[in-house]
Amino acid sequence: MTVAPGAERLYAEDLEVGTVYRLGTYTVTQDEIVEFATKWDPQGFHIDEDVARAGAFGGIIASGIHSLAICQRLMVDTLFSNWEVIAGRSLDNLQMTSPVRPGMVLTGTVRIDRIEERGKGRALVFQTCTLAEGETLVLSSEVTVYVRTRA
Amino acid sequence: MTVAPGAERLYAEDLEVGTVYRLGTYTVTQDEIVEFATKWDPQGFHIDEDVARAGAFGGIIASGIHSLAICQRLMVDTLFSNWEVIAGRSLDNLQMTSPVRPGMVLTGTVRIDRIEERGKGRALVFQTCTLAEGETLVLSSEVTVYVRTRA
Repeated sequence: MTVAPGAERLYAEDLEVGTVYRLGTYTVTQDEIVEFATKWDPQGFHIDEDVARAGAFGGIIASGIHSLAICQRLMVDTLFSNWEVIAGRSLDNLQMTSPVRPGMVLTGTVRIDRIEERGKGRALVFQTCTLAEGETLVLSSEVTVYVRTRA
Repeated sequence: MTVAPGAERLYAEDLEVGTVYRLGTYTVTQDEIVEFATKWDPQGFHIDEDVARAGAFGGIIASGIHSLAICQRLMVDTLFSNWEVIAGRSLDNLQMTSPVRPGMVLTGTVRIDRIEERGKGRALVFQTCTLAEGETLVLSSEVTVYVRTRA
């Protein structure tokens, strides 16, 4: 689902526990893996082909922070751009279950697990986000954000 | 501590539970906050001064993924560049405890909480990483990485 500019804004009361959203896809390039990791996670297996080839994965793999950033971007584009998000609060149980390699086309999903009213016009929305290539899960994480409630 | 090129490489057996490392500092600029979030987390309170001023924080705040990336960069520079890291495995209990704003000078710390042998030349190293500005904690997270054991 892509949200058109001007589409209805969603508050916590408009969200429903159990809803599963299919996010878009994201193609990961080697250039982007190396560029991201050179800045934020400059370990050899992310940025140096020779080191990576000799390492545990036989080639360059993406930084876990990069994969998480991809997940966030897909969530913002598909969901948060249309939700009354106040801010992110926490992230739990982030698992990098399989290496993310150049050329992979990743698909995201989000499931709303729980919604808790917190007063002062705020609710916490607990979600589980996953990234996969086909049937292979590469990342999963529980993401909790503050969302406004209707006045 | 900055590790000189050619410094001794550390394996899991060289690490000790309870050790606390002081990481370096990182100054967060508004340009970097906006640039990072424009690519990975394009929500108004990260990228648009007018939206941010009218929002819950009264000004632009960094994406939590950006703060996490800063934490990772400090860990790599100070620790992992000298450790025999195989790859990251998981991240737990990431709390964004206070907003990260332009101009903040963040200091990182890491504590080694637990080390578990996992066979096949690997151990899991469980750490708690924090970022703070002065006495104000802005981020904490449990970070688990695979590190080689000596052959």
